[in-house]
Amino acid sequence: MRAAVMTDWELRIADVPDPVPGPGQVLTEVLACGICGSDLHMLQHGAEVRAMSAAAEAEYSADLPDDPLRPKVFDPAQGTVMGHEFCCRVVGLGEGVTNLREGDVVVSMPVAFDADGLHAVGYSNRYPGGYAERIVLNEMLALPVPDGVPPELAAMTEPLAVGVHAVAKSRIQQGDTAIVLGLGPVGLACVAALRLLGIGPIVGADFSPRRRDLGVHLGCDVVVDPRDEHAITAWRRVAAGRPLGVFEAVGVPGMIDQAMKMAPRDTRILVVGVCMQQDHLQPMVGIGKELSIQFALGYQPDEFAASLRAIADGAVDLAPLVTGRVAIDDVPRAFADLADPEQHAKILVVP
Amino acid sequence: MRAAVMTDWELRIADVPDPVPGPGQVLTEVLACGICGSDLHMLQHGAEVRAMSAAAEAEYSADLPDDPLRPKVFDPAQGTVMGHEFCCRVVGLGEGVTNLREGDVVVSMPVAFDADGLHAVGYSNRYPGGYAERIVLNEMLALPVPDGVPPELAAMTEPLAVGVHAVAKSRIQQGDTAIVLGLGPVGLACVAALRLLGIGPIVGADFSPRRRDLGVHLGCDVVVDPRDEHAITAWRRVAAGRPLGVFEAVGVPGMIDQAMKMAPRDTRILVVGVCMQQDHLQPMVGIGKELSIQFALGYQPDEFAASLRAIADGAVDLAPLVTGRVAIDDVPRAFADLADPEQHAKILVVP
Repeated sequence: MRAAVMTDWELRIADVPDPVPGPGQVLTEVLACGICGSDLHMLQHGAEVRAMSAAAEAEYSADLPDDPLRPKVFDPAQGTVMGHEFCCRVVGLGEGVTNLREGDVVVSMPVAFDADGLHAVGYSNRYPGGYAERIVLNEMLALPVPDGVPPELAAMTEPLAVGVHAVAKSRIQQGDTAIVLGLGPVGLACVAALRLLGIGPIVGADFSPRRRDLGVHLGCDVVVDPRDEHAITAWRRVAAGRPLGVFEAVGVPGMIDQAMKMAPRDTRILVVGVCMQQDHLQPMVGIGKELSIQFALGYQPDEFAASLRAIADGAVDLAPLVTGRVAIDDVPRAFADLADPEQHAKILVVP
Repeated sequence: MRAAVMTDWELRIADVPDPVPGPGQVLTEVLACGICGSDLHMLQHGAEVRAMSAAAEAEYSADLPDDPLRPKVFDPAQGTVMGHEFCCRVVGLGEGVTNLREGDVVVSMPVAFDADGLHAVGYSNRYPGGYAERIVLNEMLALPVPDGVPPELAAMTEPLAVGVHAVAKSRIQQGDTAIVLGLGPVGLACVAALRLLGIGPIVGADFSPRRRDLGVHLGCDVVVDPRDEHAITAWRRVAAGRPLGVFEAVGVPGMIDQAMKMAPRDTRILVVGVCMQQDHLQPMVGIGKELSIQFALGYQPDEFAASLRAIADGAVDLAPLVTGRVAIDDVPRAFADLADPEQHAKILVVP
C-alpha cells in the first residue's frame, strides 16, 4: 500500500506491505486522517528529544524494569508511518472479532495491543498510522461512528479529545475565565472544550486572522493579535478579578515564560503546546504570584468517547477547521504548507 | 539604635533612629530574629530580580493602577533593615492600643500597615526588620507567645509557617508520599509540616550530614546524600507506586529540571526554594509525565498561628535547628557563615 514513511526523521512516500490484523484486531481502510503538529515537531526535534529522554532515564531510572503499560518506543532507523487522528472503515476481521463487521466506520484511540504489549499507532515500527491506505486497530478500542457523521468530522475526535483532556486537567470550573494562547488545532480544541463546559469569557490569541476567526466560531468571546494587544490586557477588559486559567497551546520556547509573566496571582497555567526544545523561566515570577503549571498529554478513553459524542451531537462544529485535503503522495508537501498558519488549520489526508 | 542596614544591595552596621509606633502599633525590642536565606539571595540577586520584575510589569501591566493590598516596594538606594523571623517584647504602646501591654512577648507576620497602606517588615524603607534592636508592629497582627515558650523557638514560627503553607499548597494528603530536596531551614520546615499532617514515607536529600541528621530529627524516614544516591532511587525502595509530592527547597538553577526528570508520572512538584536567577526546563519531560509545578510563597494568617501553636504545644521540636547566635554587629559575618551548610542551619540574631 501507499504510505508516508518516516525513516531517520525524514519523510518519504513509499510502497509498504499491508498490515495484518492479529487476534481481536481488524484491518481498516483510512477514510480521513488529520495531520498533527506533533508530527511536524517530531520530524524537526525527534532526535534531540530522544537523546534528552535517554539521558534522563540513564540518570534517574536506569535500574527500573520496562513498564509493561508503556507503548514500545519506535526505532527511527526503521520505517514508521505516522498519523494518529484517523477515521476508518473496517475491511477485514482478525481472529475472534465479534462486535465489528466489514463496512463499519470507526474511530479509535491510537493505541494497539497484542501479545507483545502496547504500541502507539502512528509512532510504531509495527503498527502504521493513518498516513497510509490501511491500518490495523483493536476491536476493543474501536468506537463506531454514528450514522450521518462525515468521516472527516469523526477524524477530529482525537484532536478534540486533546482539548477536552487539557481542560479537565486544568481543574477549571464554571465561574472561572480562560485565555488560550495559540489558536492552532490544539488551542481551538481547548476553546471548544472550554465552551462545552460553560467557561467564559474566553480570550484567544493568535497572529493569524483566519485562526482568530475560527476561535470566535468555536467560542472565544474576544480574540487578539498579540502584536496589537496582549491577551492579558484584553482579559482585563472583560474578566478582571475573576479566577483565570491560561492554556499554552503554542509550544515554542518562551511561551511558558510569557504566560507566567502575564498571569495574575494564583493563575493556573495549563501547558498543552508541545515544545520539544529546552525552555526557560524565571522561578521568582512563579513564586511571587504563586502560579501553578500543569502539563497535559493525550486523553482518557472516556474523554475520547465524549469527544466523538460532542461531534456527533453537533455540540461542537469543527467543520470549518478542515482547511485542506491531500492524497498520501502529497503528505510531505502538506507538512510544509502547515508551516503557514494563514493558509491552514487542519489538513486531512484522504487516501 | 544598632542595625544591619542594606543600602544598594550591600550590608553594613549602622546607628539608625528608633522607629516610632503609630496608631494601633507597638514599639518592641527584638528578642531573637532568624537569618533567612532569602535575605542572602536578596543581597546577591536583588538587583537583577528588580530589573526583571520591572521589565515584566512594563510589558504586561503598565496600564494597571497600583494594588493597594500589595506592600510598598523598597528603594534600594535608601536604607533597609532586613529580618522577618522575629520574636519581640513590647516596650511602648502607640495610640489606641488596647490588647497589648508593655512586657508582652509576641510574634507577628512580617507585615505592617498604616494610613499609607501595607509594608513588608524587613523589606521596607519605613519599617525596620529584626536585624535591629527595636521594631514596630501592628497590634492586630501580633500573636502572644504562650508562657514558657523560649523566644528563640517562637522566632521559628515564621520559617515553619513557610513549610506549613507549602505543604498545604501542594494538595498532598494522607496516603501520599514525599521527597524533600534540600534540608536547609525551608526544606526542614516542609519535613516538619509533612509529618504534622501524617504524610510518609518522607525522603530527604542534602549534601550535608548535619542537615540530614536534622531531617531525620524532624521526620524524614530516609535521607540521602545526592552524591551517593538519587532521592528518587531511595524513594522507590520505600514507596514505589504511591502518589508522590516533590518539594524543591534548594532554590538554585537546575533544581526544577532535576525534580521533573526524576519524578514519576503525575507527580506534583512544589517549588518553595527561592531561585532568583533565570532557570531552564524541558517541557517535553513535563508533558510526557503530565507533571504539575506549584510555586509557593509565604503563608496565610491561620497557617502562621497554627505554626506558633505547633511549636508551643511541642508537636514539632525545632530547637536543634538553631546552630548559632550572633549580635547585630556580627550579622554580616553570619551571612557569610551561612554559606557553609555544614556549620549552620539557622543563625539567630540576638540583639
